[in-house]
Amino acid sequence: MRLRNIPGAREEVSKDERCFGAGDDTKGKWSGIFGRKAPLMVEVGMGKGRFIIDMALKYPEFNFLGLERYESVMVKALKKLDRMKAEGAEVPGNIRFFCGDAAYLTDYFENGEIDRLYLNFSDPWPKERHAKRRLESRGFLKIFGNVLKDDGIIEFKTDNEGLFDFALSELEYAGYELLYCTRDLHADSSEMQDNVMTEYEEKFSAKGNKIFKYRIKKHI
Amino acid sequence: MRLRNIPGAREEVSKDERCFGAGDDTKGKWSGIFGRKAPLMVEVGMGKGRFIIDMALKYPEFNFLGLERYESVMVKALKKLDRMKAEGAEVPGNIRFFCGDAAYLTDYFENGEIDRLYLNFSDPWPKERHAKRRLESRGFLKIFGNVLKDDGIIEFKTDNEGLFDFALSELEYAGYELLYCTRDLHADSSEMQDNVMTEYEEKFSAKGNKIFKYRIKKHI
Repeated sequence: MRLRNIPGAREEVSKDERCFGAGDDTKGKWSGIFGRKAPLMVEVGMGKGRFIIDMALKYPEFNFLGLERYESVMVKALKKLDRMKAEGAEVPGNIRFFCGDAAYLTDYFENGEIDRLYLNFSDPWPKERHAKRRLESRGFLKIFGNVLKDDGIIEFKTDNEGLFDFALSELEYAGYELLYCTRDLHADSSEMQDNVMTEYEEKFSAKGNKIFKYRIKKHI
Repeated sequence: MRLRNIPGAREEVSKDERCFGAGDDTKGKWSGIFGRKAPLMVEVGMGKGRFIIDMALKYPEFNFLGLERYESVMVKALKKLDRMKAEGAEVPGNIRFFCGDAAYLTDYFENGEIDRLYLNFSDPWPKERHAKRRLESRGFLKIFGNVLKDDGIIEFKTDNEGLFDFALSELEYAGYELLYCTRDLHADSSEMQDNVMTEYEEKFSAKGNKIFKYRIKKHI
């Protein structure tokens, strides 16, 4: 996504009660923040938030958290919720946002605090020397393994075949079990029944691009 | 499968015109043997032949070959076809059998002669020192890669989770691309639309066992 500096975004995010960040006391406290004990589902890199907002509406029984590095992107998700409210649409109460970096998840979450992680159309970092920055690399999978509960799940979607091949090849080093894998998600009617599209996914699949997906489970 | 010596099985197989073996001149000649050029689909370890016979009936446009090491098992597939004929049922004309060993496929087939291989409920060889005997090991995948055409496919089903985990971990060493993977085939309605069950599969899944499946493609 193209990043634009949005004046005042940082202030807007920091004063919004739905938003949290590295300075907040969140580790091990997420049930309290949501005001209820419920499975915690986290999207790493939520962008403008369409996926996580739609998920929160679809699954009111879970707590949803959108993680995003950039305040200038996060404000778009906030504005989307505000617009929904202004238009009289249903606004999910089971959603929060966190402005932070996936590399520091263990600072933001207690071990085993997260039930499910979503990685949607992550940056492919195509240069080989940047492989460690890919969220599907063994290093990040290890971090995710710390904050995921014992049988926690990661779901990953992409339209980048190279990234997908890399992601599969990293699993062996990372202590996860491959539950499901497809190279043409939109041709799998079973899996599509519960599929919530991201903005990218809608755009790319409309162009005829195949969507790749895996679902992996943390080894106990 | 329990093996019983069936007196006369060897003679019966050797004189049956649907059956071939290591002594026959088959390499590169399969189109001639079937009497037509059509994609060649081979099941490695067909057992009593239910899967390959059902496939041959379902897909008359393809040539099907059942590979089996033991004549005493192969005669059961022959008898099944004879019984079908005697009962007036449709008998597939697009099926042949080969009594041989998967380790010597390159003796029986020309490079690239096979379009698709099926591995159904292969022997798990659970002892670690027997890992090389598993058909899903890198050694066998390499042999399969020789006789498969460039974008040839292997489909593997099992109810043995340990074997499935092993099979996935071998892919990295073997030059295949993972197209599809599930740990509960019978819950995937898309994939089940075209699923042809083996005898084992029917028995095991009726007991509530999960069926694991992958589909892999040879890298060009």
